[in-house]
Amino acid sequence: MPLPKDLKRTVVIENVAPTVAGGRYPIKRVVGDVVEVTADVFKEGHEVLVAFVRYRRADETAWREAEMRPLDNDRWTGRFVPDANARWVFTVEALPDPFQSWLVDLRKRQAAGQDLASELLEGAALVRAAAGRAAGADAAALRVIAARLAEAPSDAGLFHDPVLGDLMRWGLDRAEATWCEYLFEVVVDRERARFAAWYEFFPRSARGDGRHATFRDAEAMLERAAAMGFDTVYLPPIHPIGRAHRKGRNNALTARPGDPGSPWAIGAAEGGHTAVHPELGTLADFDRFVARAGTLGLEVALDFAIQCSPDHPWVREHPEWFFHRPNGTIKYAENPPKKYQDVYPLNFVGDDPGPLWEEMKRVVEFWIGHGVRAFRVDNPHTKPVRFWEWLIREVQAKHPDAIFLAEAFTRPAMMRALAKAGFTQSYTYFTWRNGQNELIDYFSEITRPPVSEYFRGNLWPNTPDILHATLVQGGPPAFRARLVLAATLSSLYGIYSGYELCENVPREPGSEEYLDSEKYEIKRRDWSAPGNLTEWITRVNAVRRAHPALQRHDNLVFPVCDDPNVLWYGKWTPARDDCVFVAVNLDPFGRHATMADVPLWELGLAHDAAYEMHDELSGTTWQWRGPRGYVELDPHSRPAQIFHLRR
Amino acid sequence: MPLPKDLKRTVVIENVAPTVAGGRYPIKRVVGDVVEVTADVFKEGHEVLVAFVRYRRADETAWREAEMRPLDNDRWTGRFVPDANARWVFTVEALPDPFQSWLVDLRKRQAAGQDLASELLEGAALVRAAAGRAAGADAAALRVIAARLAEAPSDAGLFHDPVLGDLMRWGLDRAEATWCEYLFEVVVDRERARFAAWYEFFPRSARGDGRHATFRDAEAMLERAAAMGFDTVYLPPIHPIGRAHRKGRNNALTARPGDPGSPWAIGAAEGGHTAVHPELGTLADFDRFVARAGTLGLEVALDFAIQCSPDHPWVREHPEWFFHRPNGTIKYAENPPKKYQDVYPLNFVGDDPGPLWEEMKRVVEFWIGHGVRAFRVDNPHTKPVRFWEWLIREVQAKHPDAIFLAEAFTRPAMMRALAKAGFTQSYTYFTWRNGQNELIDYFSEITRPPVSEYFRGNLWPNTPDILHATLVQGGPPAFRARLVLAATLSSLYGIYSGYELCENVPREPGSEEYLDSEKYEIKRRDWSAPGNLTEWITRVNAVRRAHPALQRHDNLVFPVCDDPNVLWYGKWTPARDDCVFVAVNLDPFGRHATMADVPLWELGLAHDAAYEMHDELSGTTWQWRGPRGYVELDPHSRPAQIFHLRR
Repeated sequence: MPLPKDLKRTVVIENVAPTVAGGRYPIKRVVGDVVEVTADVFKEGHEVLVAFVRYRRADETAWREAEMRPLDNDRWTGRFVPDANARWVFTVEALPDPFQSWLVDLRKRQAAGQDLASELLEGAALVRAAAGRAAGADAAALRVIAARLAEAPSDAGLFHDPVLGDLMRWGLDRAEATWCEYLFEVVVDRERARFAAWYEFFPRSARGDGRHATFRDAEAMLERAAAMGFDTVYLPPIHPIGRAHRKGRNNALTARPGDPGSPWAIGAAEGGHTAVHPELGTLADFDRFVARAGTLGLEVALDFAIQCSPDHPWVREHPEWFFHRPNGTIKYAENPPKKYQDVYPLNFVGDDPGPLWEEMKRVVEFWIGHGVRAFRVDNPHTKPVRFWEWLIREVQAKHPDAIFLAEAFTRPAMMRALAKAGFTQSYTYFTWRNGQNELIDYFSEITRPPVSEYFRGNLWPNTPDILHATLVQGGPPAFRARLVLAATLSSLYGIYSGYELCENVPREPGSEEYLDSEKYEIKRRDWSAPGNLTEWITRVNAVRRAHPALQRHDNLVFPVCDDPNVLWYGKWTPARDDCVFVAVNLDPFGRHATMADVPLWELGLAHDAAYEMHDELSGTTWQWRGPRGYVELDPHSRPAQIFHLRR
Repeated sequence: MPLPKDLKRTVVIENVAPTVAGGRYPIKRVVGDVVEVTADVFKEGHEVLVAFVRYRRADETAWREAEMRPLDNDRWTGRFVPDANARWVFTVEALPDPFQSWLVDLRKRQAAGQDLASELLEGAALVRAAAGRAAGADAAALRVIAARLAEAPSDAGLFHDPVLGDLMRWGLDRAEATWCEYLFEVVVDRERARFAAWYEFFPRSARGDGRHATFRDAEAMLERAAAMGFDTVYLPPIHPIGRAHRKGRNNALTARPGDPGSPWAIGAAEGGHTAVHPELGTLADFDRFVARAGTLGLEVALDFAIQCSPDHPWVREHPEWFFHRPNGTIKYAENPPKKYQDVYPLNFVGDDPGPLWEEMKRVVEFWIGHGVRAFRVDNPHTKPVRFWEWLIREVQAKHPDAIFLAEAFTRPAMMRALAKAGFTQSYTYFTWRNGQNELIDYFSEITRPPVSEYFRGNLWPNTPDILHATLVQGGPPAFRARLVLAATLSSLYGIYSGYELCENVPREPGSEEYLDSEKYEIKRRDWSAPGNLTEWITRVNAVRRAHPALQRHDNLVFPVCDDPNVLWYGKWTPARDDCVFVAVNLDPFGRHATMADVPLWELGLAHDAAYEMHDELSGTTWQWRGPRGYVELDPHSRPAQIFHLRR
């Protein structure tokens, strides 16, 4: 075996953090975040080392750098702030500092009264070499010092001049520095990738009177969503809906005349994934809808569901993209023994899947061309993880502001893999985590490293597919409590419209399907119906916007609280200048009072500190002192409290 | 960006274990070990997967494989046994099994009473394709079944024939399987790399009468070492010793006439690293010494110290390998203000270090040519870690039986890095860990993953450089206790001769240097002096050989014991057919009695089981019942007990 290259680059740089799977996948941050980089940095012998975080945008070539400092046991730390929405890379560079190393030894030799003549000649040579490398004023200054050293070759004191120290540090020869063997990626998203409130609605129901609405009608829904404080509206598929095997109301095998069908049966004679359902309007209407959303501070998220109705143009144009029976016909979706005759899945492992991959990219870029920057991806776990890794990287290379939300409720390893592969946000098991212990366990897992480095949970108390028993049984108190949990356990959450009306009738007892599901029909709704939660939701969204502590997904802490019916948690900013504590009554049927801990030490408060706990929901302020406080919750009058801790 | 390759290889294979730093460094095993491989294995959709550990010797091309089985949550496990002393590689291969996936769905369709005509045609096509791929008897059998299926195309029952299942499993088309992105290395050492007892002695002192001994004289020491049960004798450097600036007794700056000098001042007119010190004999005498060791079941380990006396031939032949002063003279070693005028360090970061690297390899291979397979490397942390990674890999490529022991007592990160880089064994902080808590903490760290995957601690209660205060103050009881600790906390340990005589006079109070250190003079010793530990050492080594549980470095458990003066630990084989518990009195001045836990559940014993605890040192047997027992230790009569748990 030949000798390796660069034999003189001998610094060991290891255990770099934060990374995902040793650097195989990027970590995720948002613009303006501080990226704290740590690494083991050491080399043979006893020289003084210097180390730098080297970082740059992946699409640029010029490196920037930040100096690292040693912590202990050869662990070093440095930080940088990515200032643009882009993919970034970083690594660590380190090298010995010959002048500093020499100076440290010189001091020891001086202290021991040794003869320094030869050492001082070495020091002078280092200064001359630095003068030769330097430019401008530094070079001039070094030449002056070098001349002075030549005049007084035995004056060791000249070397302790701090100006010389600075000049030598700035002029360090980095040519033979060691770089870490790996480049680590950081996907730096825009702020809304981490802090957002989504509101899902079917635009076709926007009239509320049972007649098919248009995008124009749906502008009223934008105003409602904005007024409630949401910032993202997410629309189920807006494309032409197939007619063949169209499902009827309540998922009936055959549609009756006038049944609108499921929007997830995408494609008809009027077009496929890049067309708009004619009854909603035209592409121009959609553009207008997006523009109107923009003026309200909302962005529009589309559903990206890679599947086709039998009427989709691709079925005719690209039959090779589908699965075929021995008789040559195309297979519909099945999960035996269940059959979904209105939907054809696409075949990602056919003989030549490349054109299909490229077409999927074209679809996403088409909608980006129409002002869409957020995609809720339907069932990503039924397509190859590698496909998503490629697609998202490709799209974000040109459109770094694109956000992808993975709708995967499948197995934990797959959910993590999709997030590692690039999904900006992920659905979670939140919907099925209702008890104190299971909430603490699950959120401890997904809000801490390593998972929090790549996984951002977007919490949904309901979706058109999931009406959980907690809401069915618990009614309005449960709706209020689960909303607060979703909105404060993560910085990302969403609700599906109807939640504000506490809609909770299942198709049959024990079912998680809604009765008269909106997936198969147009809903009538009275948004001002008595008992609606509009005001509660509006207040919670306002609290989220007022508190930076609630705008991160990775700062959740569960202090002790005595009552298993109460979830008690805190979030604060890194500077601890915004501290929020939340108490939620998990029992929709009973009042609960409990003592709850406040980790004063972690907040920089004295053990016996007095402070105010201001409930942002009720407006009430309590005076607390010391590390425990009393919390009382009532499912009807006070199902939750969001305390702002005021020093 | 172009599409990636192999779009159809969509299985995700992640979190493979055991690995070191995600595969950057090899794990270590010995021949015959079971390597248990686990990995997350999953893909999109719901197909039935199969997975295999693929493994081979790194120097061969043919893969072998072992089938993996799913544990839970997409975690799979498989195992293989490397059967040769070599570097190996392994990875994981996985793919969907189309026939099994189809069969699972078929059963569900059958149960639901669905029309199966089209499905059965698909199944028959899978069988025909398998028949086409298969060879010999399998092909014939598959053709017969395919013909039967063609005759009875609607007989679903034919597909449930287990013979068909086996044939389809064996004939699975692996062409489009997914392989893990990484190859993981395993350094598979010979048994002695993990289980060995080293005995260090200066051959020049072998006569014991103060006169310089030869290798022939030293054969008596081989017999002593073998009789005590050691299997490796380690010799400080055996090369010509420099005359310039030779150190005198007790490290005096100037040697008196007749002072032999330090063996670590390597090189003189008679030669350097590939020569033998003339007073020890010739290279032929060394060969005879190695052969004699072999007949006694001993192997000879040499010291590999990369440094030179001023008289070393390299100084003349390769002045460019050394550090120079401004006046052109060569620098001696310094750790300012300390000076080591008798030693020149070598410069691994000079302008062209390649030839120096190659020469170091030549030196090691020279001694391998003379029957040496084990090297104790002096101060490896003062040479580049990359150099060791290259050297050890290069040497082991040709000589996989070569063992390298790193003498680094430096910072933890460097000690770990050297082990990761390839050192077979490592010195440890054992010498400075004497209290119960610090022993438990340190050994919990180095005997468990990840550290135990690459780091094997070789424990030394003394060395020519280190006489710890515990031995100085504790005397013979401490010598007995520390010997048992070294010999049983790890499977690798060693002593420096004189330990058996409880030599413990420091150069001055508080010093860790021996008075009249053997490094600078020839010692007189009476091996049969009263109070010697020869019998104790012999017994401990015999116990180690009798108990497979004591022959591993990674199976150490610390059950609870009440007295902080007692260290209580257990080791057992994976099959739990050999279980050993050790109690050591850490207090050389007092008797201690304590209750000590036995984790019966982990040993497969009932909570109230009765069992014998046979002390292998005293020969006494106690009857214990249940999960706690009583242990009594006396520093003089019973400083330690090594219990064999007999069911």
